[in-house]
Amino acid sequence: MQKKFIAEFIGTYFLVFAGPGAMVIDDITKSITHVGVALTFGLVVMALIYTFGHISGAHFNPAVTIGFWVRGDITPREGLFYIVTQFAAAVAASCTLRMLFGNVSNLGATLPLGTESQSFVLEFILTFILMLVILGSAVHGKAVKSFAGIAIGGTVGLMAMFAGPICGASMNPARSLGPAIVSGATQHLWLYLVATVLGAVAATLVYKLLHE
Amino acid sequence: MQKKFIAEFIGTYFLVFAGPGAMVIDDITKSITHVGVALTFGLVVMALIYTFGHISGAHFNPAVTIGFWVRGDITPREGLFYIVTQFAAAVAASCTLRMLFGNVSNLGATLPLGTESQSFVLEFILTFILMLVILGSAVHGKAVKSFAGIAIGGTVGLMAMFAGPICGASMNPARSLGPAIVSGATQHLWLYLVATVLGAVAATLVYKLLHE
Amino acid sequence: MQKKFIAEFIGTYFLVFAGPGAMVIDDITKSITHVGVALTFGLVVMALIYTFGHISGAHFNPAVTIGFWVRGDITPREGLFYIVTQFAAAVAASCTLRMLFGNVSNLGATLPLGTESQSFVLEFILTFILMLVILGSAVHGKAVKSFAGIAIGGTVGLMAMFAGPICGASMNPARSLGPAIVSGATQHLWLYLVATVLGAVAATLVYKLLHE
Amino acid sequence: MQKKFIAEFIGTYFLVFAGPGAMVIDDITKSITHVGVALTFGLVVMALIYTFGHISGAHFNPAVTIGFWVRGDITPREGLFYIVTQFAAAVAASCTLRMLFGNVSNLGATLPLGTESQSFVLEFILTFILMLVILGSAVHGKAVKSFAGIAIGGTVGLMAMFAGPICGASMNPARSLGPAIVSGATQHLWLYLVATVLGAVAATLVYKLLHE
Repeated sequence: MQKKFIAEFIGTYFLVFAGPGAMVIDDITKSITHVGVALTFGLVVMALIYTFGHISGAHFNPAVTIGFWVRGDITPREGLFYIVTQFAAAVAASCTLRMLFGNVSNLGATLPLGTESQSFVLEFILTFILMLVILGSAVHGKAVKSFAGIAIGGTVGLMAMFAGPICGASMNPARSLGPAIVSGATQHLWLYLVATVLGAVAATLVYKLLHE
Repeated sequence: MQKKFIAEFIGTYFLVFAGPGAMVIDDITKSITHVGVALTFGLVVMALIYTFGHISGAHFNPAVTIGFWVRGDITPREGLFYIVTQFAAAVAASCTLRMLFGNVSNLGATLPLGTESQSFVLEFILTFILMLVILGSAVHGKAVKSFAGIAIGGTVGLMAMFAGPICGASMNPARSLGPAIVSGATQHLWLYLVATVLGAVAATLVYKLLHE
Repeated sequence: MQKKFIAEFIGTYFLVFAGPGAMVIDDITKSITHVGVALTFGLVVMALIYTFGHISGAHFNPAVTIGFWVRGDITPREGLFYIVTQFAAAVAASCTLRMLFGNVSNLGATLPLGTESQSFVLEFILTFILMLVILGSAVHGKAVKSFAGIAIGGTVGLMAMFAGPICGASMNPARSLGPAIVSGATQHLWLYLVATVLGAVAATLVYKLLHE
Repeated sequence: MQKKFIAEFIGTYFLVFAGPGAMVIDDITKSITHVGVALTFGLVVMALIYTFGHISGAHFNPAVTIGFWVRGDITPREGLFYIVTQFAAAVAASCTLRMLFGNVSNLGATLPLGTESQSFVLEFILTFILMLVILGSAVHGKAVKSFAGIAIGGTVGLMAMFAGPICGASMNPARSLGPAIVSGATQHLWLYLVATVLGAVAATLVYKLLHE
């Protein structure tokens, strides 16, 4: 078994443990607030990129993996292993949260506050921008790549901050799938699987167009 | 069409989508708080600089573009294209917010809490300092330029934090024009167009004086 | 006496003065909030790493020191001196807090909100991830080591943010021992001494397995 | 007139305009909260270091200037000019705040919540650690100096966060003098002038002892 899959497993596990865990613990203790939840999401992505970026590329996100697959950066076979690993890690994290805290607050599942179409558009835009930030700050030839962790973590943090209250600011099929499946709140899961992948692929195509 | 205008369009679009969007969504959900709105503004500028700085210079702000034009860093023709692009992107972002959320909270338009002269002075000082931070951290020959994104994003974040409740902490004609025009709250728009440009130009002249 | 022990003393002293001090002062003034306490913990670790990292390695944490001892990075004798220094500094910091503010809020001692087993599992997971972040961002051959302070400080901040309300997010035997001994709230101290060391050692072994 | 005095003037002016200004505006609008005020102080110091560090060394603080004078890094004559510039800038900033907002909230003056001796001890410890962070992260031969702005800004932010509610977390005679003199709240000013200078000098001597 290769190191990069272990890195993807641990990284995605902790991302889904800490972020949705913050939502669960905020529901129990009423102390973290939405600002604290959003900061948790941003900081965990930032820290994990500096920890695992040089091992697995630090995707932790099937939409991002599909984006890199469309670009031809990874093979379909490797991409599939990445995605299976990410989903398995997300489910394991949600199981840990359920064992520790019970089935509280849908284990931090992403749910639309308003209509599904509103959240679909939002998730598409958010993931489109997130993938552009990844490509612009971590892939582009002239990027100051060492700062990519701060740029990408900051992007996830600000997305969670401003859009979280409406759509959950998932941007990540694994982050949505784990809590939804383990808590049973799967009614809107399709939205978070489809809109995020479309957003990431669209960003990859726009970036390709611009740089070829 | 050149890459840099696409970068300016996407960057300004997302700046005006995320920042004023945070104000709109805070008005709807009462969960983001002023601290969360200010952090959103700072983080989005930081992330966009690391994503697009090496493509377009990451202005996203007509006052900054005019500052660089006064310095002779860009031609009047190029500057005009930058500014038109920035205004168009801001209007597009506000239209997206209006479609998603309705005409809530003036779409995050900047409005003076007190007198116009109070907000005029504040916007002048804020933009003056912002432009100095840009010149000192990203242009100066001895600057550690890779940290400019953090310095400039941090500056926008702290400006929004401390001055936002009084004047909106625009520092950016495009950020003010988009929400004002699309929501109809144009009564104080002139202030945000004039004070910010004067502040940026004044900073450029002071910086020129010091370094020539 | 060597510089590195003085660095460990001052660093651990200030970590235990600022972080638990924030909890004490929040209890007195009701102004810092949990978000402010968590940010204090993250920022103090970040700042101390950039200040003392090149002198002592910036452990400030017996669990981390034991992790490095298991790896063979430091001798048992040196590790023992590190740990004694860290415990002494933590006790000194808690004594300073007690002199300044009285025996308020158990001087910021870590106490489980729910069951001991819940907090034990949490502290194990948190310290396991913290040690992996340290090894991945500051030790790994391909890591961008200059960013380790931001990655590790960010990790401590997010741990405090999301898990603090349940288990205190200690991850550090010295940070738990100082306030517990000086305030007298020692009833759950064993948990924070055992779970954190087990988590750090487990992370070290997993990392060893992966890279050998 | 040399560039470095202009840099010290503008930097100190904006530090005292933004930080204490956040306290004034929070008093008027009740929206910034203590967390937002503390983040403002940290971010403004960080941004100003990346803007002016390569021009003047980015002191903005007579206690820091005296620390560098004790070390022999600057001449007494130059140090005196620095300090006069810093005090003048602080007074100018407080005058601007008074003109814009009236004599609200003592213009953000630092005042002890409890006894003077409690705040004296706190200010001594805070400035001692701040000066050590400056020396360790920006002066030490092995420091990753480009990160000093983040380390020092983070330190000021966390100090303001945890100790601000008790003593104001001045650490800076100029930051205390400006608001005190212009608002008239000078009754505890001596404390902030003396404790901060003693803390910075003590840190310089400890650092000297360690490295010679």
